[in-house]
Amino acid sequence: MADDFRLGDLASRVGGRVAGDPERIIRGVATLEEAGPADLAFLTNPKYRKAAEATRAGAILVPWETRLPGRDLLEAPEPYLALAEILDLLYPPGERRPGVSPLAFVGEGAETGEDAEVGPFAVLGAGARIGRRTTVGAGAVLGEGAEVGDDTVIHPRAVLYPGTRVGSRCIIHAGVVLGADGFGFATSSGKHRKVPQLGRVVVEDDVEIGANSAVDRGMLGETVVGRGTKIDDLVMVAHGVRIGPDGLMAAQAGIAGSTRVGRGVTFAGQSGAAGHLSIGDGSVVAAKSAVFADLPARSFVAGIPAVNHLTWKRAQALIRSLPELRARVLRLEARLTALDGKGKGD
Amino acid sequence: MADDFRLGDLASRVGGRVAGDPERIIRGVATLEEAGPADLAFLTNPKYRKAAEATRAGAILVPWETRLPGRDLLEAPEPYLALAEILDLLYPPGERRPGVSPLAFVGEGAETGEDAEVGPFAVLGAGARIGRRTTVGAGAVLGEGAEVGDDTVIHPRAVLYPGTRVGSRCIIHAGVVLGADGFGFATSSGKHRKVPQLGRVVVEDDVEIGANSAVDRGMLGETVVGRGTKIDDLVMVAHGVRIGPDGLMAAQAGIAGSTRVGRGVTFAGQSGAAGHLSIGDGSVVAAKSAVFADLPARSFVAGIPAVNHLTWKRAQALIRSLPELRARVLRLEARLTALDGKGKGD
Amino acid sequence: MADDFRLGDLASRVGGRVAGDPERIIRGVATLEEAGPADLAFLTNPKYRKAAEATRAGAILVPWETRLPGRDLLEAPEPYLALAEILDLLYPPGERRPGVSPLAFVGEGAETGEDAEVGPFAVLGAGARIGRRTTVGAGAVLGEGAEVGDDTVIHPRAVLYPGTRVGSRCIIHAGVVLGADGFGFATSSGKHRKVPQLGRVVVEDDVEIGANSAVDRGMLGETVVGRGTKIDDLVMVAHGVRIGPDGLMAAQAGIAGSTRVGRGVTFAGQSGAAGHLSIGDGSVVAAKSAVFADLPARSFVAGIPAVNHLTWKRAQALIRSLPELRARVLRLEARLTALDGKGKGD
Repeated sequence: MADDFRLGDLASRVGGRVAGDPERIIRGVATLEEAGPADLAFLTNPKYRKAAEATRAGAILVPWETRLPGRDLLEAPEPYLALAEILDLLYPPGERRPGVSPLAFVGEGAETGEDAEVGPFAVLGAGARIGRRTTVGAGAVLGEGAEVGDDTVIHPRAVLYPGTRVGSRCIIHAGVVLGADGFGFATSSGKHRKVPQLGRVVVEDDVEIGANSAVDRGMLGETVVGRGTKIDDLVMVAHGVRIGPDGLMAAQAGIAGSTRVGRGVTFAGQSGAAGHLSIGDGSVVAAKSAVFADLPARSFVAGIPAVNHLTWKRAQALIRSLPELRARVLRLEARLTALDGKGKGD
Repeated sequence: MADDFRLGDLASRVGGRVAGDPERIIRGVATLEEAGPADLAFLTNPKYRKAAEATRAGAILVPWETRLPGRDLLEAPEPYLALAEILDLLYPPGERRPGVSPLAFVGEGAETGEDAEVGPFAVLGAGARIGRRTTVGAGAVLGEGAEVGDDTVIHPRAVLYPGTRVGSRCIIHAGVVLGADGFGFATSSGKHRKVPQLGRVVVEDDVEIGANSAVDRGMLGETVVGRGTKIDDLVMVAHGVRIGPDGLMAAQAGIAGSTRVGRGVTFAGQSGAAGHLSIGDGSVVAAKSAVFADLPARSFVAGIPAVNHLTWKRAQALIRSLPELRARVLRLEARLTALDGKGKGD
Repeated sequence: MADDFRLGDLASRVGGRVAGDPERIIRGVATLEEAGPADLAFLTNPKYRKAAEATRAGAILVPWETRLPGRDLLEAPEPYLALAEILDLLYPPGERRPGVSPLAFVGEGAETGEDAEVGPFAVLGAGARIGRRTTVGAGAVLGEGAEVGDDTVIHPRAVLYPGTRVGSRCIIHAGVVLGADGFGFATSSGKHRKVPQLGRVVVEDDVEIGANSAVDRGMLGETVVGRGTKIDDLVMVAHGVRIGPDGLMAAQAGIAGSTRVGRGVTFAGQSGAAGHLSIGDGSVVAAKSAVFADLPARSFVAGIPAVNHLTWKRAQALIRSLPELRARVLRLEARLTALDGKGKGD
């Protein structure tokens, strides 16, 4: 927590405006429940309006044109984005400690850029290179010839296999493994023979990859995580997959080998896609769903196999109404039998 | 394997009673198939009764009032609990080796309690603190200011991000990551801007977390794993989740951001819950299921989306009987057409 | 990339034959799109035939009796297997660097076989043993008494708990955890009491385990991954599971405690099996499916719960046709009402 800010200054920083007192001093950000008079709280979900009325917060960050009488408000056109910016202002990241720990291992020909930081027990394999202001955390391992750009953070215990490339301004969390061998075997007479995996993993700029996720390399060519894509924890990206820029993959999602994912595609939690597919730009795969066929751009799919989201919803409703449908068929049978009997009786 | 025990002594240790010879000497525990005359075997599942009749075991641990003529039995009201206690008696844990390895890195101001043990290449960041008799395994990394209570075991290569708190008598398995950034982004014009994750992960006392699981910190506040909760391998607990005491999460389960889980809730294997939900005390989520809505206390749900377990079972049965339902509709159509024709023919 | 090869020599190495010029010099392998005149490309999936006609590759590896006029072809009876063999020939693995890094920790009584390689910050616990030409990567941890055979690669940061056994010619990828405690608790009055997990994990020869996967030990006895089985990333094998030889488990699959899996069983991605089951030889569990009951040999199942694959497909089709079935029932009702009215009107 560095400095104090006037509410009005915060508003201009984020392209917002103040309703109330622009001189209000803000020293921190907190939830509606926990905020005190020097805190900015935020109301981004209307279901918390009651809490907003009761909060002790000094001011509240709200969507444009929100009314909360008697409150100092910071109205922002994109309040969640504004919140991110204000958090960065009020809580600047801790100081870096440039330098290579004497307890790190630096292989032959490995290079570290200006103001890079390498933690204890980290390993830079022969010929590995990290850029300026890049951090390699304690115990992280960069294999031979791995390359990392500028201003990237490799958290403790991440592993980059030899030849892996990571761009600039990336965040690779603890336990991530980049470049392990893809799951490729030639099966003959029931035995599985390893197919050499000689490809490479390429993580483009501005990517974040969550704890313990894995991106594999393939037999040949590159597995690519596109620029600006954000990946959560325990996600699997298989060999030869290409994920377009600005994608989102929530926790425990997985994409099988060689599938191409377009720009801005979202995989929700625990979803998946089979291999060798093409998933169009802007598509969304709902949580727990599995894509087994190509998807055109801007698809929104759910289910196993994943189908159009509305089709899936309707199918779910029909399944719920199956007892009723069955009952109607039974009634029809009874009526028809009665009618038939009547007919016969005529 | 330390000492010998009389069967009668074991019985009194676990609140059980002997049917047969209380002087029988027991030196080990083994399965019905592998036990020898100095071993205690156990019959906790009636489907193994045949094996119990054929076993070479010296004695058998059984549920209260089980009859197995000609056998020395240890009857226990809670036999599985008794088994746990007897295993601890007969196989006490290996000796600890208190002390900080000269190959560990201990940051400025880090503190280790009496009889703590820190392995080679472990890292205690600046200001980190571990309690008495706590073990930090080889290569584990505790970030700055992380705090761990007494009698806890942090297995090799676990990572606690700065500021993480772990209670006493916890077991954190290899590869666990506590406190990585939650998956929070403000998306504007298709670009995902990181929302700083300034919160903290708090693991209360008596918690166990399995290999390679991840618990993330959120934007603000705490992500909490409640006292006595047990988490299996490869589980994901997202930012801002609060899990009540005495919960169970089986392997590869996941809970999305900000969901509140009550006391004594069970998530079976590969199950999940969406974010911002409230899951009532004592609820059970079946394997492979996904909770997409709030659950009242003592819910037992299954399916995607998860519904009452019996409703789900009934739906499954109806889906299986769909071919028959369809055939009945076709028959009805044929009968009606015939009848209609007859009518017309009159 | 070592030597040049004549196409004819490659053909005889892999039991294939040349259609075209056997003197063609091959220096590398590449995809149809990227290959140049000194490269062998491959056509193993007929849907890429167009690309094969347009490729700049010097020669193409194809299935037996494939015709591609004007091309130098290497026909192989098992082309994917041939590809694996040719990749090994053309791209021999990098040189090993036998020796124990002075930055490794070698516990009392630990033994390393001839030409073993142990990386920096690796840990060999007291009494651990690794065989000849085995590699232990940077930061990997072998617990006390762990044993590894010959020609195995333990990648960086893998962890073998004490007593774990890994065979020869295995590949254990980064972040794998072998031998963590199984998820065993005796619950009494809502509290979960740990059941000691004293068993051991045994990984037989020729096994590969992908990044960040976990195999747990059980209360007693062994958890076994059978010879020749290949496991992908982020897979969970629970306590006491036995997987037969030559199995395949794709990414994020999981098997719960004590289940026995036969020979040559395939678990596709994100699939699972409940505990205490028996899964017959040669069975296949489709992606995203969950096995909740024993399976006879050569089962091919899908769905949650998993049922015969064709039954599942039929059920999916029927669910998709539910709107139509419902409409037919409504029409029947209307017709019957009309008919009934007519009858009454008579």
